Amino acid sequence: MIETLNKAFCALPGVGKKTAQRFVYHLLERNRDGGMELAKALIDAMEQVGHCSSCRTLSEKDICNICINNHRTNTQLCIVETPSDIHAIEQSSAYKGKYFVLSGYLSPIDGIGASELGLDALEQKLHKQGIEEIILATNATIEGEVTAHYISNMAKQFDIRITRIAHGLPIGGELEYADINTIAHALSGRKDYNY
Amino acid sequence: MIETLNKAFCALPGVGKKTAQRFVYHLLERNRDGGMELAKALIDAMEQVGHCSSCRTLSEKDICNICINNHRTNTQLCIVETPSDIHAIEQSSAYKGKYFVLSGYLSPIDGIGASELGLDALEQKLHKQGIEEIILATNATIEGEVTAHYISNMAKQFDIRITRIAHGLPIGGELEYADINTIAHALSGRKDYNY
Repeated sequence: MIETLNKAFCALPGVGKKTAQRFVYHLLERNRDGGMELAKALIDAMEQVGHCSSCRTLSEKDICNICINNHRTNTQLCIVETPSDIHAIEQSSAYKGKYFVLSGYLSPIDGIGASELGLDALEQKLHKQGIEEIILATNATIEGEVTAHYISNMAKQFDIRITRIAHGLPIGGELEYADINTIAHALSGRKDYNY
Repeated sequence: MIETLNKAFCALPGVGKKTAQRFVYHLLERNRDGGMELAKALIDAMEQVGHCSSCRTLSEKDICNICINNHRTNTQLCIVETPSDIHAIEQSSAYKGKYFVLSGYLSPIDGIGASELGLDALEQKLHKQGIEEIILATNATIEGEVTAHYISNMAKQFDIRITRIAHGLPIGGELEYADINTIAHALSGRKDYNY
């Protein structure tokens, strides 16, 4: 039973045998109530959390809190790879539009094509609604870039401004410690400086 | 529901908001089966795992596998602070006796006295059974040392060899990187070298 719980914990990302064991002993010895609460929360979430039918993020309701929020503009649509990307952007409080979540990125070699990503749904969305700008916020990986490129190609048919989230040196970061790709990106993406 | 699960994960040691969020999104997006299995394993373990009535380690049965094993000697008793310490010692395959698990260490300031640690049960054990040696394997912290001292005092009334697990430089470790307390311990605990 202890062994089974140990193995079950290893399903979590970044959790190996040692960490799993630490979790198990901690819960069994000091926090059985916490363990039961975790079990219940897991069952509730695994059974009841689905996807927002509008933006496809994880949501308990048919339409998520962001999509249903009237105070957010419908004219901007930020396209991200995963629901956790939405969470990250929301933390910054710098965006007040809507989102669309791809189910990952284009990767034909893994059998992930346009339909698996929900790009059909995205195309329909662009058709129907009064969207004026889409912001491509896929990651700066090869797959993310390809996905961004594909979507921008697809969106060209509409009269929409297509933008890509900026890549460069992180705020508070030091040039000395930045990796070469980031520096190359920051240089090629430089902007006119006028204050 | 996602938020509840997030908070529930924070009950695990070393898991903060960010890690909890990573767990939640991973399970919801990629491994709902794994999440359900984890929930079931948690419920089983929290409800059914108790303590061995002989050595007080965590066990599903009344008597644990180590206590019931006839191939292990009954003459040696290794006293540890927690069940995970048993696991660590067992991994080394260097000990073939029995164990006794304290519920932590003596800490009068936190209200943990001799009876909370199960020292009465230990005393009875020393009375009844043919134990020839107890090995004090409490941690090399102040509380662990105090606990070891207390037990050795208590065990003096019996005709028993009392030993303490050795502390010194770890095997494969370098003197240069050892902390001062370990070096001081290693020096004061030096042994005659005769090969």
